[in-house]
Amino acid sequence: MFKLFLGGILRLFKLPIMKKIKIHSTKREELIEITKEVSNHVPETGEGVCMLFTQHTTCGLTINENADPDVKQDILLFLKNTIPQYYDGFKHFEHNSDAHIKSSLMGSSVTIPYKNGKLLLGTWQGIYLCEFDGARERKVIVEIL
Amino acid sequence: MFKLFLGGILRLFKLPIMKKIKIHSTKREELIEITKEVSNHVPETGEGVCMLFTQHTTCGLTINENADPDVKQDILLFLKNTIPQYYDGFKHFEHNSDAHIKSSLMGSSVTIPYKNGKLLLGTWQGIYLCEFDGARERKVIVEIL
Amino acid sequence: MFKLFLGGILRLFKLPIMKKIKIHSTKREELIEITKEVSNHVPETGEGVCMLFTQHTTCGLTINENADPDVKQDILLFLKNTIPQYYDGFKHFEHNSDAHIKSSLMGSSVTIPYKNGKLLLGTWQGIYLCEFDGARERKVIVEIL
Repeated sequence: MFKLFLGGILRLFKLPIMKKIKIHSTKREELIEITKEVSNHVPETGEGVCMLFTQHTTCGLTINENADPDVKQDILLFLKNTIPQYYDGFKHFEHNSDAHIKSSLMGSSVTIPYKNGKLLLGTWQGIYLCEFDGARERKVIVEIL
Repeated sequence: MFKLFLGGILRLFKLPIMKKIKIHSTKREELIEITKEVSNHVPETGEGVCMLFTQHTTCGLTINENADPDVKQDILLFLKNTIPQYYDGFKHFEHNSDAHIKSSLMGSSVTIPYKNGKLLLGTWQGIYLCEFDGARERKVIVEIL
Repeated sequence: MFKLFLGGILRLFKLPIMKKIKIHSTKREELIEITKEVSNHVPETGEGVCMLFTQHTTCGLTINENADPDVKQDILLFLKNTIPQYYDGFKHFEHNSDAHIKSSLMGSSVTIPYKNGKLLLGTWQGIYLCEFDGARERKVIVEIL
């Protein structure tokens, strides 16, 4: 009980933590696991929420299986077939509207609870940057609340 | 004014609250409303954000209409038709890549503001666990910030 | 160092901030940029997270490019073609199940880090209310953590 109270007091004086992760994609479309890079920034005590935000409009963030790599490939295959790069009616001059659509579908942020230094991910969950218009350098902001 | 200030002081000494909800799905694909279970964990005073996180990779969380149950069925029908379980090129040996894709499209978390004991949901909004590979037991973490 | 510590102390006594934005859509389907309206509510000092939540089930929130307006049109075109308003099997009597599906795909909230009065958006990122069943008045809650 006292430990909990003390934890609360200490947490009060903790500033929100903001870090940046850089990722280099090597293909036009790929899912790049960043679980380890994010985990490095989780505080060793206390609990709360880790929020990730990508500052781009042609990639996204998602959480999915990190055991069988075929899952990543199946996700990418389905998205590529369903949202083609060249599509009747697309007008954007950069010819990457498919990447913008996939970016909005996946979302630009994910939020994960943490406790005592560990992200509370399920057994099979990994965090992925979803590259849809690489190869590029991508930035992800990690905010610990 | 004094009440607001006092509320702020009290909030300072409140630890973030973390709870877990268990849900038992009974079909391969269904939307299960969990609004009431989540509401039970909202603190009676103060305001902030309630964040839900599911620790699985073949279900998701979403917010949608809870008045006409046909809305749930129409969402499930469309997803099932558009993202079939057996699809040319899928390689994942568990034959549930469709569920992994739907999970990423819906997302593994939702965030809802609350105030004085109430989730600030709109008139027609309910919170749903989206089961895409049941029947199973699913866990949702509720984090109050 | 002292400044950081002082910032932490001051932040402690800041209440979470909750504001509401009203948006009037003028078409059935459109992306309406609300970056400026949201930016107005970001506190001038400190850092943290700005969370937006829409209290409706037939619109959504997303972050995407705000340079070439063709991107918005391409996103809307693709969603309209892929998720038609009239679809074999839809049963919801209001005939707007397409809007409910698009709402869940985009999501009802977005989360953006901020620092010293500025949302930490990337160069090309804007915040959009995604109207899928307008014209209507829509409400977005802004919560600053």
